[in-house]
Amino acid sequence: MKEKLYLYDTTLRDGQQTQGVQFSTAEKHRIVEALDALGVDYIEGGWPGANPTDSAFFDEVGKTRAVMTAFGMTKRAGRSAENDDVLAAVTNAGTPAVCLVGKTHDFHVTTALGISLEENRENIRASVAHLVALGREALFDAEHFFDGYKANPEYALACLREALEAGARWIVLCDTNGGTLPHEIGAIVREVIAAGIPGARLGIHTHNDTEMAVAGSLAAVDAGARQIQGTLNGLGERCGNANLTALIPTLLLKEPYASRFDTGVTAEALKGLTRVARMLDDILNRVPAKQVAYVGASAFAHKAGLHASAILKDPTTYEHIEPGLVGNRRVVPMSNQAGQSNLRRRLADAGLSVEKGDPALARILDRVKAREAEGYSYDTAQASFELLAREELGQLPEFFEVKRYRVTVERRKNKYDRMVSLSEAVVVVKVGGEKKLSVSESMDDCGNDRGPVNALAKALAKDLGPYQSMIDDMRLVDFKVRITQGGTEAVTRVIIDSEDGQGRRWATVGVSANIVDASFEALLDAVRWKLIRDGAAS
Amino acid sequence: MKEKLYLYDTTLRDGQQTQGVQFSTAEKHRIVEALDALGVDYIEGGWPGANPTDSAFFDEVGKTRAVMTAFGMTKRAGRSAENDDVLAAVTNAGTPAVCLVGKTHDFHVTTALGISLEENRENIRASVAHLVALGREALFDAEHFFDGYKANPEYALACLREALEAGARWIVLCDTNGGTLPHEIGAIVREVIAAGIPGARLGIHTHNDTEMAVAGSLAAVDAGARQIQGTLNGLGERCGNANLTALIPTLLLKEPYASRFDTGVTAEALKGLTRVARMLDDILNRVPAKQVAYVGASAFAHKAGLHASAILKDPTTYEHIEPGLVGNRRVVPMSNQAGQSNLRRRLADAGLSVEKGDPALARILDRVKAREAEGYSYDTAQASFELLAREELGQLPEFFEVKRYRVTVERRKNKYDRMVSLSEAVVVVKVGGEKKLSVSESMDDCGNDRGPVNALAKALAKDLGPYQSMIDDMRLVDFKVRITQGGTEAVTRVIIDSEDGQGRRWATVGVSANIVDASFEALLDAVRWKLIRDGAAS
Repeated sequence: MKEKLYLYDTTLRDGQQTQGVQFSTAEKHRIVEALDALGVDYIEGGWPGANPTDSAFFDEVGKTRAVMTAFGMTKRAGRSAENDDVLAAVTNAGTPAVCLVGKTHDFHVTTALGISLEENRENIRASVAHLVALGREALFDAEHFFDGYKANPEYALACLREALEAGARWIVLCDTNGGTLPHEIGAIVREVIAAGIPGARLGIHTHNDTEMAVAGSLAAVDAGARQIQGTLNGLGERCGNANLTALIPTLLLKEPYASRFDTGVTAEALKGLTRVARMLDDILNRVPAKQVAYVGASAFAHKAGLHASAILKDPTTYEHIEPGLVGNRRVVPMSNQAGQSNLRRRLADAGLSVEKGDPALARILDRVKAREAEGYSYDTAQASFELLAREELGQLPEFFEVKRYRVTVERRKNKYDRMVSLSEAVVVVKVGGEKKLSVSESMDDCGNDRGPVNALAKALAKDLGPYQSMIDDMRLVDFKVRITQGGTEAVTRVIIDSEDGQGRRWATVGVSANIVDASFEALLDAVRWKLIRDGAAS
Repeated sequence: MKEKLYLYDTTLRDGQQTQGVQFSTAEKHRIVEALDALGVDYIEGGWPGANPTDSAFFDEVGKTRAVMTAFGMTKRAGRSAENDDVLAAVTNAGTPAVCLVGKTHDFHVTTALGISLEENRENIRASVAHLVALGREALFDAEHFFDGYKANPEYALACLREALEAGARWIVLCDTNGGTLPHEIGAIVREVIAAGIPGARLGIHTHNDTEMAVAGSLAAVDAGARQIQGTLNGLGERCGNANLTALIPTLLLKEPYASRFDTGVTAEALKGLTRVARMLDDILNRVPAKQVAYVGASAFAHKAGLHASAILKDPTTYEHIEPGLVGNRRVVPMSNQAGQSNLRRRLADAGLSVEKGDPALARILDRVKAREAEGYSYDTAQASFELLAREELGQLPEFFEVKRYRVTVERRKNKYDRMVSLSEAVVVVKVGGEKKLSVSESMDDCGNDRGPVNALAKALAKDLGPYQSMIDDMRLVDFKVRITQGGTEAVTRVIIDSEDGQGRRWATVGVSANIVDASFEALLDAVRWKLIRDGAAS
């Protein structure tokens, strides 16, 4: 029989304290749905009354499997819990559970609140009792608890006892400024339990200011706490909160946690974790961080040649878990340290089956190495890598030939005396024995100048004769440029991400001292890859 | 008397296993310089012989305060250490220390290497003895040690003893696949020490696959290990290595580490940590992650209203350390009082003294906000920020006016039937009432095309009349381009770093949908800033 370990998600409340993050009501509902499917026990939805979005969210929120929780603060001194309008706004949200933050650090009581130590204890007691009288599950968030306990353990514990005796289901120990190390958290939680607060009523709330919020949460669980508060992707004030996206797989897949605890997240739900993490990035319009534990795109990427060949023999050699358990997957990228086994695997991913020992493998590796020394990067630009390999394997049709191009960028005053820019590109290609001249300018449908690369992309894709229909659904979605060292000279590397109507997305690379040339090379690769994928015949 | 704790940096070797990371030799030298100034004890420079960049790096590397270390692997079975060419390439780099990775997990010995357990022990012994005979400091990287120890502790320990008895200064316990939790690391390190391997000879090498590499490193130190291996910004294979940028401040500022250990990093060097972290991101052309412990731009950002007002009363309420200790700074919402005092400090940095309460402060804040919403970034481009502020303060002379420009990029076959590119730029300025037309092309002294921005920079700086002598010593040293969101449209942001003969280096920013326009704007700012600094009169 496993012991229950509770997961409390505060993405919608503390997570929203992240710089630049502000969820809309609709986004909050999407996140609630994902959290509920994942199987967390509590969802903290926000602070009703603190802002219009949070209030609107609670008005609309439907039934959830998880216990929906409203956040607020203990009543202020000098009025009763029943007559505190801030507290009333919180309880009026009607959630089954309410979490109230309060002070337990004597210094904060006197400095930040400016009230007596006894008044603060009374505020905690009366607020929790008020929630209980309303029939709500009460949680008490003990702000700055660890610092408070270090400064004045008697007072900090007395505050916890007020909440407990007033009927709080949970006492949550918060390391509000994130400065407490895991070994201290473990020791203090043990002391709190020894002082008579049951571990089954204790929660832990950590921040990542020393990059140890996950370890600190586990230290508290090791010491006896039975609720973990955290956020998806570790969102939160400053360096963020404890990252549930990292904690959940560890709790389900690693010992002693896996055998000992039941978290409410099933093995099946865990397979959706990577998708949940990416969905949140999508809502935030962020590029997902690659090196994130368990769910990052690089979490199971094997770049070193020695690692990659061992992985082919047995994945457990360099993988601590099977990537599919968290809905992630293995990546064996190309780099100048990669071996032939790595290369064959990558070619297979591109649908190119090459026999072991084929001399083309060595040629491909040599060309990749030489090109990377010039500044190319095939780790990211899988489509350009595939074209290079196809060329060495004699499987790259020449669909068309670019004879020349010219781009002009001009900036001058228009007739209204405003400075305006316009770019024009001419591309000359030979396709099916026929010479085609195309010209485009950089103006978009709204009359805005989109620059020379845009003009060039349009001119190149304007008339490719028999192939035209295949590239009509292509579009350039991202464009990254950096200056790098190619041999002894600084060169420009351009990576272009393209997308098509079938939802395919591919990356190509171009390198040149001339940024327009580098861009054109990457554009050409993007078009050629698309033609191959769509099965064009040369 | 404090005990010595050694820091071993592997940014240049294991850090380069990060997907998409490939340092040039010049970049490696810049990183070595920063690490040496920071005060780490060992710098692992790469694997000599594994690729041309690493070999070139060791050929050129000069004297460092830190012990320069070459990485390689133990000799292969069936040949002597003296006759192993892979090992010879490593020792031939001539570094004072050499770190060799070898197997200690019986399963890997038989599966990945396919040799007998005894042969593997012999490979370790003979390789370390060979290094010692050559007079080098020997380090043995025990790959997969924790998994190996769990599977077969006797064999894993026997491998360590081979290295130790052959004269290895350090035995580094590696959690290669990143799956071992801190409590297991602590327990196993204790057992290894109890089995007779002295803690003073033990190093720890962790990976961040469960987001606990930092905690795992500290657990090993708590158990007695005295060397920590890690990387700047936590670069590394998969989820990265232990992040030295987070570990170093914890070791220097937090107990029991601060009182107990001497790491070689001084309090003064620690103040450069944020700058080192940002420099590495700059080399990688990455947007620095904001929520990173200690050095992230949000690490001391206080968004919650309650927090921000408490911070004004007493910063220790929500800050676990003083941000300046790691060279970072506090960020409070621009809208309030503290926002304005921040701004005044930044203006003072630029030599602009503005009185408290000056209405220009609010105007500058508004313009910065509006421009940042369009895609500008004044965090990095201090020189452009200064020009913006000067404009609001009425302290920006108009040295010259750009009337128009035109750039042409052409690519076609030359008379030898090779594709060649050439760019040409015409810039028309009005300076001192006189109109000046300048034209330049993108060819450098060696006959190579350097692209349109180069042509434009040359044309702009070709004839500025009375100011010409002041800009003759300017040169463009770096050029970064990123696609970003400006309002609803994707725009291009260009950051240009310039340098002059007096060793000054400054950054300017330009934003436009058109990359050439964005570049031109940043170039113009660079010239104007230089003229102000050199005291040009309009």
